[in-house]
Amino acid sequence: MSPSSSPSDDPFAFLTLTGPVPRLTSSRAWVAAVLEAEAALAAAQADEGVVPPAAADAIAAACDVERVDVAAIVEEAALGGNLVIPLLPRLRALVGDEHAGAVHLGATSQDIVDAATALVVHRCGDAVAAVLGDSARIVAGLAADRGDAPMIARTLGQHAVPTTFATVTDRWSDGLAEAAAALTTASRSPVGLGGPSGDGRSFGAAHHAVVERFAARLGLPATPVARHGQRSGTAAVAGAWGLAASVIAKIGLDVVLLAQDDVGEVAEAAPGAGGSSSMPHKRNPVAAISARAAAMQAPGLVATLLHAAGSGELERAAGAWHAEWPALNGLLRATGSAAQWLHTSLGRLAVDPARMAANLSRSQEHR
Amino acid sequence: MSPSSSPSDDPFAFLTLTGPVPRLTSSRAWVAAVLEAEAALAAAQADEGVVPPAAADAIAAACDVERVDVAAIVEEAALGGNLVIPLLPRLRALVGDEHAGAVHLGATSQDIVDAATALVVHRCGDAVAAVLGDSARIVAGLAADRGDAPMIARTLGQHAVPTTFATVTDRWSDGLAEAAAALTTASRSPVGLGGPSGDGRSFGAAHHAVVERFAARLGLPATPVARHGQRSGTAAVAGAWGLAASVIAKIGLDVVLLAQDDVGEVAEAAPGAGGSSSMPHKRNPVAAISARAAAMQAPGLVATLLHAAGSGELERAAGAWHAEWPALNGLLRATGSAAQWLHTSLGRLAVDPARMAANLSRSQEHR
Amino acid sequence: MSPSSSPSDDPFAFLTLTGPVPRLTSSRAWVAAVLEAEAALAAAQADEGVVPPAAADAIAAACDVERVDVAAIVEEAALGGNLVIPLLPRLRALVGDEHAGAVHLGATSQDIVDAATALVVHRCGDAVAAVLGDSARIVAGLAADRGDAPMIARTLGQHAVPTTFATVTDRWSDGLAEAAAALTTASRSPVGLGGPSGDGRSFGAAHHAVVERFAARLGLPATPVARHGQRSGTAAVAGAWGLAASVIAKIGLDVVLLAQDDVGEVAEAAPGAGGSSSMPHKRNPVAAISARAAAMQAPGLVATLLHAAGSGELERAAGAWHAEWPALNGLLRATGSAAQWLHTSLGRLAVDPARMAANLSRSQEHR
Amino acid sequence: MSPSSSPSDDPFAFLTLTGPVPRLTSSRAWVAAVLEAEAALAAAQADEGVVPPAAADAIAAACDVERVDVAAIVEEAALGGNLVIPLLPRLRALVGDEHAGAVHLGATSQDIVDAATALVVHRCGDAVAAVLGDSARIVAGLAADRGDAPMIARTLGQHAVPTTFATVTDRWSDGLAEAAAALTTASRSPVGLGGPSGDGRSFGAAHHAVVERFAARLGLPATPVARHGQRSGTAAVAGAWGLAASVIAKIGLDVVLLAQDDVGEVAEAAPGAGGSSSMPHKRNPVAAISARAAAMQAPGLVATLLHAAGSGELERAAGAWHAEWPALNGLLRATGSAAQWLHTSLGRLAVDPARMAANLSRSQEHR
Repeated sequence: MSPSSSPSDDPFAFLTLTGPVPRLTSSRAWVAAVLEAEAALAAAQADEGVVPPAAADAIAAACDVERVDVAAIVEEAALGGNLVIPLLPRLRALVGDEHAGAVHLGATSQDIVDAATALVVHRCGDAVAAVLGDSARIVAGLAADRGDAPMIARTLGQHAVPTTFATVTDRWSDGLAEAAAALTTASRSPVGLGGPSGDGRSFGAAHHAVVERFAARLGLPATPVARHGQRSGTAAVAGAWGLAASVIAKIGLDVVLLAQDDVGEVAEAAPGAGGSSSMPHKRNPVAAISARAAAMQAPGLVATLLHAAGSGELERAAGAWHAEWPALNGLLRATGSAAQWLHTSLGRLAVDPARMAANLSRSQEHR
Repeated sequence: MSPSSSPSDDPFAFLTLTGPVPRLTSSRAWVAAVLEAEAALAAAQADEGVVPPAAADAIAAACDVERVDVAAIVEEAALGGNLVIPLLPRLRALVGDEHAGAVHLGATSQDIVDAATALVVHRCGDAVAAVLGDSARIVAGLAADRGDAPMIARTLGQHAVPTTFATVTDRWSDGLAEAAAALTTASRSPVGLGGPSGDGRSFGAAHHAVVERFAARLGLPATPVARHGQRSGTAAVAGAWGLAASVIAKIGLDVVLLAQDDVGEVAEAAPGAGGSSSMPHKRNPVAAISARAAAMQAPGLVATLLHAAGSGELERAAGAWHAEWPALNGLLRATGSAAQWLHTSLGRLAVDPARMAANLSRSQEHR
Repeated sequence: MSPSSSPSDDPFAFLTLTGPVPRLTSSRAWVAAVLEAEAALAAAQADEGVVPPAAADAIAAACDVERVDVAAIVEEAALGGNLVIPLLPRLRALVGDEHAGAVHLGATSQDIVDAATALVVHRCGDAVAAVLGDSARIVAGLAADRGDAPMIARTLGQHAVPTTFATVTDRWSDGLAEAAAALTTASRSPVGLGGPSGDGRSFGAAHHAVVERFAARLGLPATPVARHGQRSGTAAVAGAWGLAASVIAKIGLDVVLLAQDDVGEVAEAAPGAGGSSSMPHKRNPVAAISARAAAMQAPGLVATLLHAAGSGELERAAGAWHAEWPALNGLLRATGSAAQWLHTSLGRLAVDPARMAANLSRSQEHR
Repeated sequence: MSPSSSPSDDPFAFLTLTGPVPRLTSSRAWVAAVLEAEAALAAAQADEGVVPPAAADAIAAACDVERVDVAAIVEEAALGGNLVIPLLPRLRALVGDEHAGAVHLGATSQDIVDAATALVVHRCGDAVAAVLGDSARIVAGLAADRGDAPMIARTLGQHAVPTTFATVTDRWSDGLAEAAAALTTASRSPVGLGGPSGDGRSFGAAHHAVVERFAARLGLPATPVARHGQRSGTAAVAGAWGLAASVIAKIGLDVVLLAQDDVGEVAEAAPGAGGSSSMPHKRNPVAAISARAAAMQAPGLVATLLHAAGSGELERAAGAWHAEWPALNGLLRATGSAAQWLHTSLGRLAVDPARMAANLSRSQEHR
């Protein structure tokens, strides 16, 4: 029996499962990535003459997520502790007796899971960077339309000195660019092949050449030293996604604060959204609120990933490696969802220069 | 369209979705808890003569999770930002025109969501405490069978002085008892009723009496001051579940360390589990590993909940309240799953007194 | 050479080292607590006839922090990894040859360090609870003076419905009471005595009786099972202090938000404080800001403590135990400093009912 | 009165205050960095003809940490909430009436504090990268001497397949290189100048040119958009230092695990260190233990910094900015201390090929 009985078993999916990431981090997406890694390994080994081309072709044909029972693999992962172990007998059966011996040749499950993880992260990084890029374009439009509107700067919650709305949009643009750049850069984790001992000797003399081809086929950088027990890659991904989430959380907070009834300089204008169960007159900035709520998940998940990265035993961690997966998937999803909600909020944003002017003039008369 | 297309959309469900908690924290369970809170409110108001008994009866009959479209409610929660807003029109329609006015009377959505949260936590607390209690019974059996086996104590990784296996089982028993006690105690969060301003005046003169009856019907303590913007309850729950997870993580680590091939004093004995993709001779303590991996999720989630608890604006938080839900559901699930895996590990545990004796004698000869 | 060359080597001492905690968590305070634990052990053993009364008297006389070189002990702790190891030869020398054998009899350093930790936590808990209690009295005064002032409730940053300032003060009172109660309750960690193996057998037949007397002399509960490798006590302390910090952070945020120039319903009135380097007209709520800044340190420190509590190896942790100390001392200091700053902020608080009324009437005319 | 009465007021200084970082993050170092930023600002403005060269010279002469009362500045920071506010009147007095008007011209305190922070981080980054580089050289020596020693690989705590000690040293070298690179790259945070509103207009037409010169004088990159309220720089620093700490924690754990008496393949060989209060025969790997304990502080501090980065209000945060300082200083110190302890551990490391061979042969005979 699958652990959850309902297709929408996460009651708070609206907060952490919006945008492109859920599709890229589903069971299906992960199993597909595992299959891509197995296929890339066989192809790389064929390139180097380690396995016959026909074997690599047979493996490539078998590495099709449509041909495996994703739900069963996810469930049986409990027995061996990762997604590769229940996949291998199925894959060998699909490949057939002649070439079954070429499947997973020289590899250990961590070679494949780590490469699949890098693929998933890479795809999510590009997808979320694109959402952030779209948001930056919306902000550029806000800046073009309203950037010259005079308003009061607020520091420590107090009225400081006059500025314009461009100070806000410049800050948002800068943050979105930094966040997208971090995701794009850090979401290209190097992949390696270590085999059961991590030293790669199970891949024979062609080890380094196979690693290079394996990485090239996956579109990722190669590392000659397999990182089964050296998790700086995990830490780098964690840091970049944490950075992106903090940028999003901050912009969401700016929207919430400028949308306060006592300030009223922006509002989320969306028919049907932002209502209240008891106060129909309210216009809550629900997209910015959701962006903040999602983004606030990130720092704790980053801490989990950093702890896991530093807690692994010798050549392969007994728990700390496994602990990376839910935290990482959660971080990708929460940050991606936060990015999507921020995009929605910015798209809904109505700027009120008259209110800005009124607040500014009230501020000036106090001097 | 639901955010995820597959019934097992969490590829790492085996780590964080085992045991009794997934069923108690599903969309269905949360919507059911929301409905229970609405029914309890109407019943409490009927008890105090605020609404007619017939209205409370009609509401009770409507508050049946079988009668609402859980998936639609979860999806539409995105519009208003919580589960109650999309539920109310459905509930009023089910109740019918005559008594629709008695639904949610005086309440704001946070009254209901917070009470539903307390119900969910309470049920999870009891269920996970029961799993821990069962584990304690397994440990008691290990202690009875093998507690007098001499072994070497290990401090800072070094051989210290001789002891017996009872030192290990006593420590585990003590931890499990503390963890279960923390869950039982802290998972009874007080419930209150504040209404739209949080001061309860929307409930009229009967406010305090209604709160008492509301809480009694839900089987939880009452708080006269609604805690929409005072989140010590969230922090208390977080602390208790974090404590339980840390106890589990530690016991899981003990198993992993004693099961090292270099130590070999315990093993997980389970046909079919613990295999390796490349090394069939290995017997990995996969249940303890999974317990650790799940439990390692907790500290970061606790930090998220504490940050959220301290970051809410005035009478209701614009994001920090919403941020509690995924972190809390995640904490309940990860800790519950860790408890279940630890139970599995302890149930599988084979203790090897001969190896203990051999390690001890090797230790003694070094003096 | 001492690691820091200056008496005020923490440039941000104003944020995390205010209030009563620095004095209670200094090197001197910790070494004094270690000495108290050694004295209590000898006295408990004398009570049970394990050591002669004269030995306990000699040890009590030697266990005077004025008689040891605190700075040298702190520095030499680096050699053995804890504060007890460099203290013992000094203590034995002070006691003299006749009774030196009765010093630390049967104990291991963790027995003493853990007891000293419990003493330090207990004292800090009482001291910070007292600061919170004083704050509650200030809030009660604000409620008495201004509680009936009408104001608008603000939910999700939006004007909700009218309420009075009592909603704010009731929330603060409730939070402060919960925080103080948590500190008082959880800061009484049980103490035990395990000896080198943790099983207590080094204390002989009187083990349990000595533990009871030891705990009674320290004014703390006793645990029959020493908790060298069972850290639920650490987790419980972490949770309670995290709860207190989250309450403080929230009240500090309320002050900041109500003190916004755009709201202006409260202000910190303090000659000389709250100035700006560039804007002399500003009146920043610097005490509330400092309270928030200090309190925001807590969730991360709690996560560190929970991770440490769950990461310790077997009978004594190789790093995770040691990791508790800076995180715990940091948590006590940050939370205590946050409490002190909040006290200052509340003491400075000027409430402006006229501004509340003006904001309320502006809110009403929008309906 | 300074908050702490003793020069070594941190009882756990041995864990978090070793190595080069304490000196680079002391009160004196921070105040010196603030003075450097003020001097660089005046010089940059002189370069652009905004202030007379004589003014810049006078300011440069005054910006000497020997000429100010560091302890008083640190103490008075409590009044205004940062280190710049109490410094300015002192600096203006030192500069003299003629040029006092050129001090801090156009700037707000955050311009200066943020630049000083970048300076401190930059220096710490280089210093800790150097420690890591030295450690890498030690590891290279171990690899040269003992890398070909056969040993058993251990995955999930179980014996896997034969490898050599080079697998361990290659992993350590790779991690140390990644950590040093991260610190070097990410510790060059861009500096900007925003003035009281953050938009830089207080610096007049020369704003961008002054920013470029200001940054060049500080040896750091420039950002045209001041980042008072855009804290991706903080998040980037946090991520890089968290990465470095996780690498250190992992290597420390490897040492602890290989040094277990049950494994015995490495040991810390250091006369006088690693003793026990109760067990003189023990040889605890106290440097690796201390490295782990220090490094375990990092993930929680990173989470605090990410939360702070995402929680700041509008143009300047009311608490979240201030919260960065203790967390950042703590992260620099803990990570730097962990690096220093790891260096000590690696320098002490004795490798035992005979024990490796014995463990390996025991492993082989089980097949």
